[in-house]
Amino acid sequence: MDFFADLNNKDSGDPSCHEPLLTHSKPWKILLVDDDEQVHQITQIALSDFEFEGRKLELISALSGQEAKQVFAEHDDIALALIDVVMESEHAGLSLVKYIRDELGNGLIRLVLRTGQAGQAPEDVVIREYNIDDYKEKTELTTQKLKTLLYSMLRSYRDLCLIEEQKQGLSRVIQASALVQNTTTLQAYATSVLDQLTSLLKLERSAFYCLVHPRPNGEASRALTLAATGNYYDCYSECAFERLPEPVSTRCSEVLEKRESTSYPDAYLLYANDEQGVDRLLYVNVNRELSELDKQLLEIYMQNIGLTFENLTLMNDIRETSKELVYNLANAVEARSKETGAHVQRVSLICEKLAELSGLSDNDVNMIKHASPLHDVGKVAIPDSILHKPGKLDREEWSEMQKHVEYGVNILSNSKRRLFAVAREIAGTHHEKWDGSGYPNGLKGEEIPISGRIAALADVFDALGAKRSYKEPWTNEAIREEIEAQRGKHFDPELVDLMLANWQSFVDIRSQLPD
Amino acid sequence: MDFFADLNNKDSGDPSCHEPLLTHSKPWKILLVDDDEQVHQITQIALSDFEFEGRKLELISALSGQEAKQVFAEHDDIALALIDVVMESEHAGLSLVKYIRDELGNGLIRLVLRTGQAGQAPEDVVIREYNIDDYKEKTELTTQKLKTLLYSMLRSYRDLCLIEEQKQGLSRVIQASALVQNTTTLQAYATSVLDQLTSLLKLERSAFYCLVHPRPNGEASRALTLAATGNYYDCYSECAFERLPEPVSTRCSEVLEKRESTSYPDAYLLYANDEQGVDRLLYVNVNRELSELDKQLLEIYMQNIGLTFENLTLMNDIRETSKELVYNLANAVEARSKETGAHVQRVSLICEKLAELSGLSDNDVNMIKHASPLHDVGKVAIPDSILHKPGKLDREEWSEMQKHVEYGVNILSNSKRRLFAVAREIAGTHHEKWDGSGYPNGLKGEEIPISGRIAALADVFDALGAKRSYKEPWTNEAIREEIEAQRGKHFDPELVDLMLANWQSFVDIRSQLPD
Repeated sequence: MDFFADLNNKDSGDPSCHEPLLTHSKPWKILLVDDDEQVHQITQIALSDFEFEGRKLELISALSGQEAKQVFAEHDDIALALIDVVMESEHAGLSLVKYIRDELGNGLIRLVLRTGQAGQAPEDVVIREYNIDDYKEKTELTTQKLKTLLYSMLRSYRDLCLIEEQKQGLSRVIQASALVQNTTTLQAYATSVLDQLTSLLKLERSAFYCLVHPRPNGEASRALTLAATGNYYDCYSECAFERLPEPVSTRCSEVLEKRESTSYPDAYLLYANDEQGVDRLLYVNVNRELSELDKQLLEIYMQNIGLTFENLTLMNDIRETSKELVYNLANAVEARSKETGAHVQRVSLICEKLAELSGLSDNDVNMIKHASPLHDVGKVAIPDSILHKPGKLDREEWSEMQKHVEYGVNILSNSKRRLFAVAREIAGTHHEKWDGSGYPNGLKGEEIPISGRIAALADVFDALGAKRSYKEPWTNEAIREEIEAQRGKHFDPELVDLMLANWQSFVDIRSQLPD
Repeated sequence: MDFFADLNNKDSGDPSCHEPLLTHSKPWKILLVDDDEQVHQITQIALSDFEFEGRKLELISALSGQEAKQVFAEHDDIALALIDVVMESEHAGLSLVKYIRDELGNGLIRLVLRTGQAGQAPEDVVIREYNIDDYKEKTELTTQKLKTLLYSMLRSYRDLCLIEEQKQGLSRVIQASALVQNTTTLQAYATSVLDQLTSLLKLERSAFYCLVHPRPNGEASRALTLAATGNYYDCYSECAFERLPEPVSTRCSEVLEKRESTSYPDAYLLYANDEQGVDRLLYVNVNRELSELDKQLLEIYMQNIGLTFENLTLMNDIRETSKELVYNLANAVEARSKETGAHVQRVSLICEKLAELSGLSDNDVNMIKHASPLHDVGKVAIPDSILHKPGKLDREEWSEMQKHVEYGVNILSNSKRRLFAVAREIAGTHHEKWDGSGYPNGLKGEEIPISGRIAALADVFDALGAKRSYKEPWTNEAIREEIEAQRGKHFDPELVDLMLANWQSFVDIRSQLPD
C-alpha cells in the first residue's frame, strides 16, 4: 500500500448492477398441481387474459406431486403454486409443500392449497402447521375469486422478491463501502447504492449521477459520472453529455441552465449545486409519479455521495501536498541552497524500484520509498565550511562530515511512527558498504539492513548522473561501469544485478525528473 | 477543516438505532368498519385467541366510514382494515378506501372489502380500480376463513413494513457513509448498517460488533465496539467484556479462546481474526436458526467494516506522520542543528489560535496553522558565518540574512497546491512590519496579508520566550510589555489586542510544548 497516496491497489469492485430478481418483460410463472386434467383446462381459460403489473402469466402444469418436483428442478423462479391436497397419495400435496419449503429452502414462492375434500386436510391445522399462504376449497375458486387470489399472491411475491434483492444489494453496498478510497472505488459504491435505492423505490433500474465542474473559459462542460445503472451503465467511461441518448442529453443541458430539479413523464432529474460551484445531476428513469419521500431519499443520496466525493478529493490533496512538502524540505536540506532540485524525489523512486525488484512486501516498498528522501537530513547540522568546501576534506573535516549520519538519526528520533523508524534506519546505514569499509559502524553484507543497502545504491546512482559544483554529470555508460565495479564492494551484489538487469527503467527515472 | 487530520469536525451522526416500525411486544391493530354491531361482536369472538408471530390482536371498531376516518387520526399503525361497502352511503366503504390510500397516502395498511350485497360493488371492477388487497362476501367469512385471511394479510403487512424500514434504513446508511472519516463516524455508519442488516434478516434487533486488540503482556483484553444496536446499545461507551450481561460476556470469552464462530439457541457469535492478530466478534441475538446465506451476509458485514476500520487507522497514521515529518524538517532547517526543538510546532499553534481569534474561516485557520512552520525555511541557504555569528551582523551580512525571505519563497514555489501558496505568502511577508519599516518590501498595515501579520507576531512571541545561544528566555511579563510596546509599530494592533485579551492561552502553548 502506498504510504501516502494509493489506497487504490485493492480490487476496485464491480460497478455493474446485477440482474434483478424480477425482470419486467418476463411473465409470472404459476404452477398448477392437480391430478384432474379438467382443472388445468378451466384454470387456463379463467386466467387467459390476466395481467399483473403489465406482465402476463405462464401457466405450468403438473399432474402429480412427483411431477411437480421435477418442474422445480427446471424452474427456480415460480411465483405461485396452486396445489391439490389429494393426488397420488392422500397427502401428496402436503408433502410437496414440505419439500418446497424445507428441502428446496424456497421461502419466496407463494403456496396455496386447493382441496376437494376439506376433511382430508383441515384448514385450521394446515394453515398453522404448514408454511402455506392460503387455503381454498375448490368450490370457492370461481374465476373472479381465482383472479383476486392471484392479485394478492403476486403482490406478496413481488414484495418478498424485493426484500430478497435488498439482502443481496445490502451485501454489495457493505462490500463496496469498505473500499471507498478514491474515485474509482467511490463509483463502485455509488453505483451499488443507487441500484439498491432504485430497487427499493420500485423505480426503473436505469439511473445515473454525475458532477459537472465549472469551466470558466467557456469550454464545453464535461461531467464526471459517479454512478450509472441499467441503460446508462455505458455512460461510465464516456462522460460527455453528447454521448447520452436523447432526450436525456437535452434535458440535462436544460436543467443545468435552469438550475432546478425537473419532473418529466418518464424521468426525474434532480439538480443541486455545491459550495465550489460544481453542479450535481441525478437522472432517474421513473415508471410512476414520485412521492415527496421518494424525492427526499434521492436527494439524500445525491448530497451524501457528493459529500463523500469532496472528502476524498480533499484527502487526496492532503496526501499529495504532504508528499511534495517532504520532497521540497528534504531537497532544501540536502542541497543547502535556495534552489531545490529533484534529487531526493529521484532517489525515492529509484529506491522504490529496487525494493520492488527485491521482492519486498508492498508495505515495505512504500516505507522505503517515502523514508528514503530523508537519508541525508543530518547534513543540516554540518557547517558550510565543510559541506561547501571546494577541495578535498582533511581528516578532521571528513570525520565531522561523517557525523551527518548520526545527526540524521537524532533528527528523526522523536517519533514512534513506523515511517520514522525506517527513515532512521536508512539515515543511519546508507554509508555502510557491503565489504565492511563504510561508516559509521563498518557493517558488512547482510548486517546492513536492506533499506540501507538500497538507499546506498540509489543515492550513488543518482549523484553520479547529476551535475554538482565540483563535477559534471557522468555518462550512463560510465555510471554503469562504476556500479558494476562496485558490485560486492560498495554495493550489495544482488541489488547491483537487479539494477543492471533493469537498467533502462532506472535511466528513465532520471530523464523523467530532471533538475 | 484541519488540513492534516481532522475531517471529524462535522456532525458525527447519531449512532442510535431508530424505533422499528414493528415493535414485537405490541399487538397488531385491526380496524373493523361495519354499521352492523353484531358483525363486530362476532368478529371479536372469532378472533379472540388469534396470534401471529407471538403478537395478539387489538380490534378497533368503527360503525361508519366517518368514524373510521377519526380512528385514523389517532392511529397511524393499523395493520389491516376490514371494510363494509354499504354504510352511511351506498359507497361509504369505497370512499373510505380512497381516503386512506389517496388522502392519507397510507400504502402500508392492508384493506379488505366485505360486502353483504355483491351487486353493489362488483368484485372484478373493485379489485382492479381500488387499491384493495382482497374482496370477500360476508357469507364467505367463516371463522376459519377469517383467520386464514388474517394470516395472509398480516404476513403481507409485515413484509411491506420491512420494505418501508429498509427505505429509512438505507437513507441512514447513505448519510452515515458520507461521514466515515474517523472511529466515531465509522461507529455511526457500522451501527446504521448493522441495524439495517438485522432488520432485513428479520432477526432480533440486538447485536454488537467489537474488535479485541492483542495484549501481549497478559493484560485484560479490551474491546473496541464498532457497532451496537438494541439491548447492547449501552456497550458503546464501555467496552470491557465484564460490562456485558451474562451469558453474553462468558460466550465472548469462550469464543475468543476457541477462535471459532458458535451458534447458541438465542444468539449467533461470529468470530474472525485479521492479519494484525486483532480478533473480531459479531454477536447477534437470533429468534430462529440462521441460514447459510444469512451467516454469509453477517460475515461480509464483519469483514468489510473491519477492513474500513483498518483503512481509517492507516489513513490517520499517514496524516499524523506527515505532520510530524513537516515539523521535524522545518525545525531542522530553522535551527540548523542536530537537535530539533518545538519552536515551529509552537509557532504553528500560536498562529492557529490568532487566526481563530481573528474570525477567519476554518479552512483559512488550518491553512495558516500548517503553512506557518515553513516561514523560515529559506534560512537553509544562509551561510553559517552569518546565521551562527555570535555578534551583531554588519550591513552586508544583514542584507544577506534578509534574503532568507526570498530564498524561502523560491523553495516553496514549485507546487500549485493551496498550502504552498499560503506558505509562500507567510515566508515572503513575515518580516514586514505594520508601520512599514519591515522587509523585504516595506509593506504597511493591511498591505501585509493577514497570514504574514499573524506569523510575525507568533514568531516573535515564541522567540522571545525561548533560550538562544545569544540570549536567555524573557519572562512572560517582559514579553507582554514588548508586544504591547510594538502595537501598531511592528505588529497589527488588532492582533496584539486579541493576544493580550487571551494572554494565558498563549502562555499555555509554550508550557505544553517545551523544547
